[in-house]
Amino acid sequence: MQRIKPLKTGWQLLKSSCEGAAKQVNTSPSTSRYYSHRPPQGRGSFGLLFDIDGVLVRGRTLIPAAKQCFRSLVDGEGKYKVPVVFVTNAGNCMRQTKAEHLSELLDVQVSPDQVVLSHSPLRMLTQFHKMRVLVSGQGPVEEVAHNLGFQDVVTIDMLREAYSLLDVVDHSRRPKHNTPSSKGLPPIEAVILFGEPIRWETNLQLIVDVLQTNGNPDDVCSAMRYPHIPVLACNMDLLWMAEAKNPRFGHGMFLVCLESLYKKVTGYDLKYEALIGKPSVVTYNYAELLVSQQAERLGWNTPVKRLYAIGDNPMSDIYGANLYNNYLQACQRTTAQAQTRSGGGDPSAGTVAAASKVTSTVAVGVEEELPEGCSSILVCTGVYSRDQQEQHVFHGHRDFRFDPALTQPSFVVEDVKEAVELVFQQEGWPLD
Amino acid sequence: MQRIKPLKTGWQLLKSSCEGAAKQVNTSPSTSRYYSHRPPQGRGSFGLLFDIDGVLVRGRTLIPAAKQCFRSLVDGEGKYKVPVVFVTNAGNCMRQTKAEHLSELLDVQVSPDQVVLSHSPLRMLTQFHKMRVLVSGQGPVEEVAHNLGFQDVVTIDMLREAYSLLDVVDHSRRPKHNTPSSKGLPPIEAVILFGEPIRWETNLQLIVDVLQTNGNPDDVCSAMRYPHIPVLACNMDLLWMAEAKNPRFGHGMFLVCLESLYKKVTGYDLKYEALIGKPSVVTYNYAELLVSQQAERLGWNTPVKRLYAIGDNPMSDIYGANLYNNYLQACQRTTAQAQTRSGGGDPSAGTVAAASKVTSTVAVGVEEELPEGCSSILVCTGVYSRDQQEQHVFHGHRDFRFDPALTQPSFVVEDVKEAVELVFQQEGWPLD
Repeated sequence: MQRIKPLKTGWQLLKSSCEGAAKQVNTSPSTSRYYSHRPPQGRGSFGLLFDIDGVLVRGRTLIPAAKQCFRSLVDGEGKYKVPVVFVTNAGNCMRQTKAEHLSELLDVQVSPDQVVLSHSPLRMLTQFHKMRVLVSGQGPVEEVAHNLGFQDVVTIDMLREAYSLLDVVDHSRRPKHNTPSSKGLPPIEAVILFGEPIRWETNLQLIVDVLQTNGNPDDVCSAMRYPHIPVLACNMDLLWMAEAKNPRFGHGMFLVCLESLYKKVTGYDLKYEALIGKPSVVTYNYAELLVSQQAERLGWNTPVKRLYAIGDNPMSDIYGANLYNNYLQACQRTTAQAQTRSGGGDPSAGTVAAASKVTSTVAVGVEEELPEGCSSILVCTGVYSRDQQEQHVFHGHRDFRFDPALTQPSFVVEDVKEAVELVFQQEGWPLD
Repeated sequence: MQRIKPLKTGWQLLKSSCEGAAKQVNTSPSTSRYYSHRPPQGRGSFGLLFDIDGVLVRGRTLIPAAKQCFRSLVDGEGKYKVPVVFVTNAGNCMRQTKAEHLSELLDVQVSPDQVVLSHSPLRMLTQFHKMRVLVSGQGPVEEVAHNLGFQDVVTIDMLREAYSLLDVVDHSRRPKHNTPSSKGLPPIEAVILFGEPIRWETNLQLIVDVLQTNGNPDDVCSAMRYPHIPVLACNMDLLWMAEAKNPRFGHGMFLVCLESLYKKVTGYDLKYEALIGKPSVVTYNYAELLVSQQAERLGWNTPVKRLYAIGDNPMSDIYGANLYNNYLQACQRTTAQAQTRSGGGDPSAGTVAAASKVTSTVAVGVEEELPEGCSSILVCTGVYSRDQQEQHVFHGHRDFRFDPALTQPSFVVEDVKEAVELVFQQEGWPLD
């Protein structure tokens, strides 16, 4: 799995672009984050990462504990007491829309730079931005792609219109005339899977066509090339919790269909150039950057030392937080070794020179002070339930080298209110 | 694979019900088919089985050779010179509609009792007819199901309406109100997959829900039962040939998705109670019955000795015809052995007492004289092309014990006209 490799080169760009968040920071992040190595100062040394579905809401319905909990997280003027970032694998929308929706539901102000969507890190993958990309998803996918930096965007509907003979599963949408002229398009150069689309049969057929024809779906696919053109996928979540009693299909299910069909037809494995969104480390790294920027705005003079990630999905939220925790620990070891080798060096510089091979899924170079750890807190208001038998089925993505230990949360609590109370207790900070 | 087992008991029913075909036969098929064991009489000893897509049409477009060929198959009064049956894996329509469509395209009269659709043999599976069945497909699926004998039919749309919280992939179709009351339905007892549906995400979600909840999709699926309720599927074709240059997704692709998702979520294999349509033997057996009935109407006084199946899909048409040919041969060996054991017996009786274990996929008892063989003729106007590299990928169904030899046709010809000319030449019958 070459998931993170391309992110290496893009990572530095994140700090200057990260979807507008950096604009609100007066000092340059690359200098402002060289803090001294002082012990945590009690207050001001932690941040919170909230999953949304199954933690704060179920479908359109607010989970009761959430409103109460958020009231206690802001002061009398509505300002957050600690950095708060929402990390969701939702992707079929804009950050602005998600922030407005959360503000309304939680009755506190949520700004777009507190929101990490599954596709947010795509902004860093600049090597794809000039390619002609086919985008799959629903909602404002074209606008989302443009906002992320993609310049030449083709939607599934545009492809259907250009090649009207391809999508014939639905009898009523088949071309009325026998031989509609094919308008054609220049070749597709990459495929971006944003989130679960509508009419899976159409998306599956057209994406497999594009992959089998090297981006020219009007060509005969007798000389199929493999590996196919790059495929980038956001949000691997198999299931998520809405109002129904049982979990609902997520984008991960669409990916299972696409992988299975491509394999059945061609005999080859579908390859991902990048798989982003939780549990990928790059998503947490991005969230951590937003947390640090908020800490600065709060006037905290020490770096954020601990992160607490609250989620309902062991395979996504818990796995991701624990994987990121491992990454942070490995970064620390690398720093310590570097300091030992350089005879101690200046502890106040405290940089991690390189952490290029931390785990099989992490290879992002960092040059700034990272948190010491990330705790995972599992709530029982979503996908996970205390009553359920032990999960014997792997609900993670095909390409994830599965480590069962990483699905074990640091803490299990009933709901998000208990989770936040636990964090403040751990930090020795009364939650008024 | 228990595919054919339930057909055993239903087989005898076929002869009296077979979708109206028997009604036009004056003499009872069970008596009228005891012919004497005379050698074939030149004329009047063969029948033709035509696949439709890729042989006669591509999408809505007639393949030129087809019209010409059918003109030569009828006499001056438009009556067929030999028995002709159309055996298609299409299923999202009625036999009547298909016959009318063919009549119009081919400019010869095609009657519904010349048409075998993928679901036609379901009429025999009477043990399921009184169950509450969930049907998946498009077009008049409810009407098709009723016509086949199913009395209590629930469509996917009815299920969506009854349980409005289940189908939430499409954001715009999610319930507008927070807690819509669930009207509920009595439990679903079996699932019938007729053909490729529209909005695969909806069908996949609801079918998996039904299988995980023992037919009660509003229940929590913590105590999932396995094996799940019976699933019957018609038409396993992975791909088929329409107007586009490359093959299009068929119902087999939907089945791959369903199998993959069920496996990913539950860890168990999806089980089929029956898989019907080509290449299943039962479909050819059914087609052969229709051929014999036509032969009787033509006044032929000898049983049909040879069948010729013309198709474009090696995995469906050719595999099925060859599998059926093996079945016919095995039936003959069984008959010969029975005659030897009984000291010769009366050769004019000539019955095959039982052929219950011919191949792993065939277990239909027969008590009448069957053809001696079935030849397979592959045309190059559809899925198969002479230019294509040898197929290294298995495009058959997961549950088919694959025998590569069965994909080898008896003959390869350019198109259906050449196929029919070849047959008449083989039979020593000039085709005027």
